[in-house]
Amino acid sequence: MAGSSFGRIFRITTWGESHGPALGCVIDGCPAGVSLSEADIQPFLDRRKPGNSAVATARKESDTCEILSGVFEGKTTGTPISVMIRNSDMHSGDYDELKSVFRPGHADMTYYAKYGYRDHRGGGRSSGRETAARVIAGAVASKVLAELGISVEAYTRSIGPVEADMDEYSRSAVLANATAMPDITANAKALEYIADMKNKCDSCGGVMECMIKGVPAGIGDPVFDKLDALLAQAAMSIGAVKAVEIGDGVKVASSVGSRNNDQFKAAKNGHITKKTNHAGGILGGISDSSDIIVRCSVKPTPSIARTQKTVTENGEDTEISIHGRHDPVIIPRAVVVLESMCAVTILDALMYDMSSRMDNLVRIYKS
Amino acid sequence: MAGSSFGRIFRITTWGESHGPALGCVIDGCPAGVSLSEADIQPFLDRRKPGNSAVATARKESDTCEILSGVFEGKTTGTPISVMIRNSDMHSGDYDELKSVFRPGHADMTYYAKYGYRDHRGGGRSSGRETAARVIAGAVASKVLAELGISVEAYTRSIGPVEADMDEYSRSAVLANATAMPDITANAKALEYIADMKNKCDSCGGVMECMIKGVPAGIGDPVFDKLDALLAQAAMSIGAVKAVEIGDGVKVASSVGSRNNDQFKAAKNGHITKKTNHAGGILGGISDSSDIIVRCSVKPTPSIARTQKTVTENGEDTEISIHGRHDPVIIPRAVVVLESMCAVTILDALMYDMSSRMDNLVRIYKS
Amino acid sequence: MAGSSFGRIFRITTWGESHGPALGCVIDGCPAGVSLSEADIQPFLDRRKPGNSAVATARKESDTCEILSGVFEGKTTGTPISVMIRNSDMHSGDYDELKSVFRPGHADMTYYAKYGYRDHRGGGRSSGRETAARVIAGAVASKVLAELGISVEAYTRSIGPVEADMDEYSRSAVLANATAMPDITANAKALEYIADMKNKCDSCGGVMECMIKGVPAGIGDPVFDKLDALLAQAAMSIGAVKAVEIGDGVKVASSVGSRNNDQFKAAKNGHITKKTNHAGGILGGISDSSDIIVRCSVKPTPSIARTQKTVTENGEDTEISIHGRHDPVIIPRAVVVLESMCAVTILDALMYDMSSRMDNLVRIYKS
Amino acid sequence: MAGSSFGRIFRITTWGESHGPALGCVIDGCPAGVSLSEADIQPFLDRRKPGNSAVATARKESDTCEILSGVFEGKTTGTPISVMIRNSDMHSGDYDELKSVFRPGHADMTYYAKYGYRDHRGGGRSSGRETAARVIAGAVASKVLAELGISVEAYTRSIGPVEADMDEYSRSAVLANATAMPDITANAKALEYIADMKNKCDSCGGVMECMIKGVPAGIGDPVFDKLDALLAQAAMSIGAVKAVEIGDGVKVASSVGSRNNDQFKAAKNGHITKKTNHAGGILGGISDSSDIIVRCSVKPTPSIARTQKTVTENGEDTEISIHGRHDPVIIPRAVVVLESMCAVTILDALMYDMSSRMDNLVRIYKS
Repeated sequence: MAGSSFGRIFRITTWGESHGPALGCVIDGCPAGVSLSEADIQPFLDRRKPGNSAVATARKESDTCEILSGVFEGKTTGTPISVMIRNSDMHSGDYDELKSVFRPGHADMTYYAKYGYRDHRGGGRSSGRETAARVIAGAVASKVLAELGISVEAYTRSIGPVEADMDEYSRSAVLANATAMPDITANAKALEYIADMKNKCDSCGGVMECMIKGVPAGIGDPVFDKLDALLAQAAMSIGAVKAVEIGDGVKVASSVGSRNNDQFKAAKNGHITKKTNHAGGILGGISDSSDIIVRCSVKPTPSIARTQKTVTENGEDTEISIHGRHDPVIIPRAVVVLESMCAVTILDALMYDMSSRMDNLVRIYKS
Repeated sequence: MAGSSFGRIFRITTWGESHGPALGCVIDGCPAGVSLSEADIQPFLDRRKPGNSAVATARKESDTCEILSGVFEGKTTGTPISVMIRNSDMHSGDYDELKSVFRPGHADMTYYAKYGYRDHRGGGRSSGRETAARVIAGAVASKVLAELGISVEAYTRSIGPVEADMDEYSRSAVLANATAMPDITANAKALEYIADMKNKCDSCGGVMECMIKGVPAGIGDPVFDKLDALLAQAAMSIGAVKAVEIGDGVKVASSVGSRNNDQFKAAKNGHITKKTNHAGGILGGISDSSDIIVRCSVKPTPSIARTQKTVTENGEDTEISIHGRHDPVIIPRAVVVLESMCAVTILDALMYDMSSRMDNLVRIYKS
Repeated sequence: MAGSSFGRIFRITTWGESHGPALGCVIDGCPAGVSLSEADIQPFLDRRKPGNSAVATARKESDTCEILSGVFEGKTTGTPISVMIRNSDMHSGDYDELKSVFRPGHADMTYYAKYGYRDHRGGGRSSGRETAARVIAGAVASKVLAELGISVEAYTRSIGPVEADMDEYSRSAVLANATAMPDITANAKALEYIADMKNKCDSCGGVMECMIKGVPAGIGDPVFDKLDALLAQAAMSIGAVKAVEIGDGVKVASSVGSRNNDQFKAAKNGHITKKTNHAGGILGGISDSSDIIVRCSVKPTPSIARTQKTVTENGEDTEISIHGRHDPVIIPRAVVVLESMCAVTILDALMYDMSSRMDNLVRIYKS
Repeated sequence: MAGSSFGRIFRITTWGESHGPALGCVIDGCPAGVSLSEADIQPFLDRRKPGNSAVATARKESDTCEILSGVFEGKTTGTPISVMIRNSDMHSGDYDELKSVFRPGHADMTYYAKYGYRDHRGGGRSSGRETAARVIAGAVASKVLAELGISVEAYTRSIGPVEADMDEYSRSAVLANATAMPDITANAKALEYIADMKNKCDSCGGVMECMIKGVPAGIGDPVFDKLDALLAQAAMSIGAVKAVEIGDGVKVASSVGSRNNDQFKAAKNGHITKKTNHAGGILGGISDSSDIIVRCSVKPTPSIARTQKTVTENGEDTEISIHGRHDPVIIPRAVVVLESMCAVTILDALMYDMSSRMDNLVRIYKS
């Protein structure tokens, strides 16, 4: 339990280094009876796959996954689902010159401080490559949620100064655009901006967001395991994320109560709706049946070709210029990772919620 | 483990409702041999105590704590430390009219949806009163951290439009000012703004921040239990927090790599420093020995006297106007809660880190 | 999480020392909507209360419990249930002579080795008194299980050489007999044997057993959290227990497959029964709907008046003779502790099982 | 976390079915800086490998393991160690006739009741084959423990009526003998007994034991995570184990305090020893520096060729006679599984203990 597991019931464990033989994910606690095959997972992996556009690294990762356990005759059995991706196209040699130098903005220095020992090739475990394993879990969780009528959709809100127009939101645009932005105009502008950054040997950041629809009211737990608290952990655990917002997020600080409160309204089916959704679908840590909104600020890719000052493992000052295959912006590939982490968090909260009411126990065990 | 526990080794469990007989905290996993008495905890509780200024509710909570276990002859024994606060000055009657109405912006509706049953008096478990129990744990964790040369200090950055001038930072000002702001001028302006809000039967939000100094490089765990991910969970679990930022936070989205990267520099003692601290002391989820910066956006207090539309437990539209003793802004009292949650998170990560290196095991068990 | 918590969903945390101000239990994860009051808990506490017969210590513990949270208007709210017992009749002075001497068979030495510091009064946290807190949790769990048609009954099988006749089993005899044996004749003989031990300044052990009826097939989890594995942890965690058996237990080692296998038989209602129950109701770690049988061997009370060799905190050889108020046999009071631990384990496994099937999720969330 | 993980800091997760493509283990929390390669693990796997003697199934499992992550240039990096074994020689067809019939003594019926769906081939996840993954973790834990001077040795105490003579104990005999018994004479007799069982189309059980030497006093945690409680969970989680004893185990029930108490004695180095070791090295759940003794009773292999009554998935009575490749006794191959589970439990408790004293924190973080 040294940090590689997440979830209380739908519990995922990831393993694997950037340049090791393979990486993977073990999902323990997936309900039995869900149809599942590699074909459900591959599209998620493809969305974070590099090498398919101008905005992403030229590194080619086939990222073909193999389900090794937990599925029998096309259905989950309730036992751990182990899924593996063999690494390929590993240019470990690219990293030889980084062997004893700490890259600014990367975890090289901190891993070395912690363990006294590190796999320097591509960041090892701290590489963004680790997120491929999370995406596997996200694909499985999304499949389960879909059967319950819950959708989880992430997209790019902004890249550098270019903001998407949410009135133009289209899921198919998110999936088609190289930037994962939901509108075409912003996508085009963002691509220009990224190209400019690349020319300047620099990199840029942006904002990504996840919208979760269909979660019934009552999901999430009080106090420390509030749904927003777990979503915050989930999102902040993604490498380059430096801020997590729920609903109106940082804007609430300058709002006032009369405007920020979402007033309630009776709905025809006996349910309750809200006239606005400043809260982003969560009140007191528990879902209120409105859309759940999670937003992340992502830092510029730290690997840049510009010369930077740094220090060697021996504690000597030196300079570094990072060449190789790096994304000038990480967001387009990180969007599916945010979507995956949100899906896992929501499903786990849902499964955890089942036992919170005595009448649910009676329904299932006293028939 | 339905959400009321936090921490992996230094593990805290809080219990208690706003208007029940008592509330408290059990700390399991505190190291043995730490000097501890109620006098270490009381100052923390006093900082979140209401009723001592114009900015806070008139409700008087003596909040006198009693250590019930885990301490013998003035030192911790390594066994669970149970601390209790008896509730007093409970005007449960104030809440009778709220019995079957859901207050906008509160957790009344979501608790009801989840459990089918709720303690309506003052929000019960969802009340901010629950945080008194967290402050107990924070006081204990801070005591342990101080012995290791680590300080944890939270303060108000802004209230509504009024921002503190961080160049004027003074810990004593934070502790003395009614707003918990670190400078006197901003404090005065903020108090005016709050008074104005109160006159308008409205409320306001703000920003609070925590600065942690002295954490050695190497603390935190990879992947899901990244130090920033756990700090994000810790901070977002505080009632009214809607955004958590680490270091530059949301600003990184519009920065570029060459500016956002903190370049390294050799320090005289063989250590490594950074020329800047955009990262807020954490790289790849692990501390880098710079100051750790955690910032939270806090929403305006939802309890306001203005008339709002809402719905009854029976699903009928109605209106509500909340009177009684409520803070027009929650931040001044929430600052010590943020400080407490950060202290608990850091200590837990530190204790968890001990076993991450074989040479540490050898040092302790093979002498 | 330094050992004072148990359970994954129905999670209990106990705290308190033998001679501190109080002890208690926090139950997090109890379903909402269960009728509960102190009157449900007190009978369980009374069963482990000393001072009411010749077989138990003369120490008088009123053991009156107070529910401090989690119950509102007579029903559980789903939030943590905190229950406290104030200690009384503490003759701490009785232990002054033990201040720096390690009692053989007790945890004095090992606690001192671990923590470098200990509360020597009555064993502090290692005292059997800690089990009062478990019994609180057991009472709550039993209440929930009873509503689902599941009963948990523990009793004494043997004391020293005196064995109960299980053909004479009567629950009321268990509750009435001073030895907690299920038959009257054995009870009388055992009392004689205990009196004899007392005269000889010695103590004795015995065997206690728990029978759990009504658990549906399918409860428990594969591999490490097998139902019998968790029951083993639960039972072995009771102070003086040195062996845990499930079903035929140690006898299986000398049996053969053709005799030990329980052959299946179709039951009228479409269910499956077994012709025998050597397995004790658990196959592959999962309940099979037969009675679940857990059996524990309990060591003789280590506190005896006879002179024993031992060592002081300073590492010097010395002798000790333990006077004061001690049970010559611990089993009669431990029976309700075993019953409590089994109830907590079964309820937790049941609540955990809810999410193991997709059709259960569909039933609850897609209506 | 549906039961496939064990350990709090040194945390193992196993996955894989008997007749799926592969099985494996992920170890999260192994300290960095331990020399490790497949050559450290293979000997453990070979000890549980079938097919190498008259006592074991003829099924040939090459059980060649591959380390996929967590090791770099021959040393552990502190990140998750993933180890996989590809399944081979799978005669899934052998199980076709068992597709809809529940084997007595097996988990077929209970898995079906739980999940409504099961992999019938060889028991799927409930197969003893799962333990190969545990043995991987045991090999790693043993390597770490050996560096700290702690040894973990398991062996067969008895098979059916044949008991080993412990005065003849020899580790090399344990490793050489087909029965894993520590003396040659008993080994020969046991082989005769097993052959007799096989002829009778029957199977037998036995007793296995683990002796752990070199654990310092102070390891283990109070209350629920007592060292013996966790060892009991660990041992009882092994498929066919029906009883777990610590030290004198079931015999304590008929002993008396004056005999069962282990009296203390000062040792030359300031340490404390015991004149006897009835307690099996654990007092109050914490190690006392004596040898730790864990003993398990193992049931006869349920797969027998004799005709047994059973029921089909459709609830109809039928008969079954199980042919194929099955061990007439499971103990010889289970011994290394017990050894592995004990090693994992002890190492985890040791790593957990590090943070229990303030002076340890000061030693590591305040230098």
